[in-house]
Amino acid sequence: MLTETDQNSAEGITFPRGFRAGAVRAGLKTEGDDLVLILSDRPAAAAGVFTTNQFRASSVDWCSQLMKSGDGRAIFCNAGNANACTGVPGLLDTVRIAEAVGRALGVDRNEVFVASTGIIGVPMPMEKVNAGIDRAAKELGSGRDVDNRVSRAIMTTDLVPKQTAARFQSDAWDGEVRFGGVCKGSGMIAPAMAPPHATMLCFVTTDASVGPDLLQKALTHAAGRTFNRITVDGDTSTNDMLLLLANGASGVSIQDEGPAYEDFVTALEQVCLTLAKEVARDGEGATKLVEIVILGAETEADALKIARTVAESPLVKTALYGCDPNWGRFLMAAGRAGVQIEPSEVTVKIGDILVFQEKGVPFDEAAAHAYLRQKEVRVEIDLSMGEASATMWTCDYSYDYIKINADYHT
Amino acid sequence: MLTETDQNSAEGITFPRGFRAGAVRAGLKTEGDDLVLILSDRPAAAAGVFTTNQFRASSVDWCSQLMKSGDGRAIFCNAGNANACTGVPGLLDTVRIAEAVGRALGVDRNEVFVASTGIIGVPMPMEKVNAGIDRAAKELGSGRDVDNRVSRAIMTTDLVPKQTAARFQSDAWDGEVRFGGVCKGSGMIAPAMAPPHATMLCFVTTDASVGPDLLQKALTHAAGRTFNRITVDGDTSTNDMLLLLANGASGVSIQDEGPAYEDFVTALEQVCLTLAKEVARDGEGATKLVEIVILGAETEADALKIARTVAESPLVKTALYGCDPNWGRFLMAAGRAGVQIEPSEVTVKIGDILVFQEKGVPFDEAAAHAYLRQKEVRVEIDLSMGEASATMWTCDYSYDYIKINADYHT
Repeated sequence: MLTETDQNSAEGITFPRGFRAGAVRAGLKTEGDDLVLILSDRPAAAAGVFTTNQFRASSVDWCSQLMKSGDGRAIFCNAGNANACTGVPGLLDTVRIAEAVGRALGVDRNEVFVASTGIIGVPMPMEKVNAGIDRAAKELGSGRDVDNRVSRAIMTTDLVPKQTAARFQSDAWDGEVRFGGVCKGSGMIAPAMAPPHATMLCFVTTDASVGPDLLQKALTHAAGRTFNRITVDGDTSTNDMLLLLANGASGVSIQDEGPAYEDFVTALEQVCLTLAKEVARDGEGATKLVEIVILGAETEADALKIARTVAESPLVKTALYGCDPNWGRFLMAAGRAGVQIEPSEVTVKIGDILVFQEKGVPFDEAAAHAYLRQKEVRVEIDLSMGEASATMWTCDYSYDYIKINADYHT
Repeated sequence: MLTETDQNSAEGITFPRGFRAGAVRAGLKTEGDDLVLILSDRPAAAAGVFTTNQFRASSVDWCSQLMKSGDGRAIFCNAGNANACTGVPGLLDTVRIAEAVGRALGVDRNEVFVASTGIIGVPMPMEKVNAGIDRAAKELGSGRDVDNRVSRAIMTTDLVPKQTAARFQSDAWDGEVRFGGVCKGSGMIAPAMAPPHATMLCFVTTDASVGPDLLQKALTHAAGRTFNRITVDGDTSTNDMLLLLANGASGVSIQDEGPAYEDFVTALEQVCLTLAKEVARDGEGATKLVEIVILGAETEADALKIARTVAESPLVKTALYGCDPNWGRFLMAAGRAGVQIEPSEVTVKIGDILVFQEKGVPFDEAAAHAYLRQKEVRVEIDLSMGEASATMWTCDYSYDYIKINADYHT
């Protein structure tokens, strides 16, 4: 049995034992820290999932190639420049970054993951980056202050930093496994990440010892049920990336599929879900986090397809901003998802309020409107066809969504 | 050779010979005419394409069933109530409407097409509808005034009426074939219409004589290249419908595939394209009509898939509202479309201005910005892989898009 003994958002990436990090200002964003290094003090297994967008940043190409070895020691991340659509020169810059980090930290360049977020199509200002790497390497540390600086340094259009720290006990292992995670993302959010190909960036550390293949399997599973189920605008970035380092500092070793692995996966999924929901909650212009639940589908794939179509529908998202219990828009979106359904069997709930069934149902519109004014709301569509279900997390479309994206000038 | 001898938007549905129409106020909208009858004075062949949304309004069910005979005499259309998600009672109301129109016009109910648009889930106020049918039947007429009233009566959130009238000559036929068309639609626009299953409503009349099977084939082809290639919000309505009546009053008869049929299809596609573009131009909150052109694809299906993904991308649509030549967003959308491309070969043009190629290209950003401030703009993405191409028509996302849809309360 798995027990989460502690979870908080005051700590993050260096919460698991054996990890240090540092954040400095390299001058890539207009203000604040914008360059981060994360280091495991011992060899670690690495796993990653990356964007499936065919315009992939060079950092994504670099990291997916590194995944072949399954080993990793360090993560470099900068905000302010995505180094995407920068051609061969951009790729060479990514390799130079890995080399510079390797030199500064005393590790091989092939153990250095590189992640970048920010403007597309502009060459990386390598002089600033190199100077930043050298300073960050000298300031590595652990604890709350470091975690907080890291969580802010990787932000771009994010309004709030997103991190989590959690510890788990299980009767399938001795001792305690810790997880730390940090992520960023607010717009261009609809991660569709596949191994080894995920501007949502997320870095998770754990002090469990897990072999690379098993670690990748666990991460792929967790990403599929968390980050790949959030959407802000349906637009999948060129730079999305979720990286996991497992360094074994806890003494807990998980080397094959069994109860300990199952508990590890459950814990990892929980950590990823906490972070993924924060990304949806902080979606550009969002006023609320929305959970779209599809029940009674014949297959999970069907349920997910409908959930995604509803979660991405502009008419649904604007109705949610207007706090309007407009079940017609939910049905419209469900009906166009390309999944065979039985329209006469479908019911819709907003919170606990049944707002639609075939024969028509009177409901308290004022109560439904009041429910939708909350910061977290849930919409449930039951297809009454089978036992499968799926959930997507999204946010509403507000005036600020238009403002942020129409006023942003290249 | 086909020659369009005249095209104008001052006339519409009764422009072809042998058609009359009437518009009255039945009291379904808050103001203005809201009920329309269109009648062919002789038997006509009918063709239609209907929404593929699984939540189909009862009017869609009724009309697709009528298509089996291929005959039609009349079209009823009301605005203000969609009679969708109204269950069996809603279907019975649709049948009663067909019967009432049949009685009032002296035609069989199975020759009466019914189209409804407006609020979802509210029972049709049959007393008002019946009274409206009787008055409209007594006021049938033809000419500009009638056409204009019809074009306004079917509007819901539309800001402008949309109609077209055109006459064509061809060396494949003797005489002149006329077309008249009227349509409505502003939101919930991403028609995905298939025969015999398209709240875009469009009615087209022609005085050519074309057999029902050939007419359906022509309409399916034309819809696939026009109405099915526009999008406002990517949301496919429960009520979309495109109907075509061909009554033969011109004396021009087209009974098999050959040069005359080819010219007829070309003419029909031109009429549909004129109307479809008006729908995209009048999209909710739109400030401009945007043409997304994908060139150099391996197949037309690939080109269309990319064009649709770009045309529906919220980040693309907000950038267009901001008049921002943000080629990164165009590439992002093209890259997530699920079509295999060669990123290094892709080029992007905004109007005639090359804004992206792999090696980077300096361009006049002020000029590109100025170009995007126009009311009609074109974005061209060349994949450089093959010879196939496709075009989608869309509009931008403005503050008004949010206002219209968040302030709309059920």
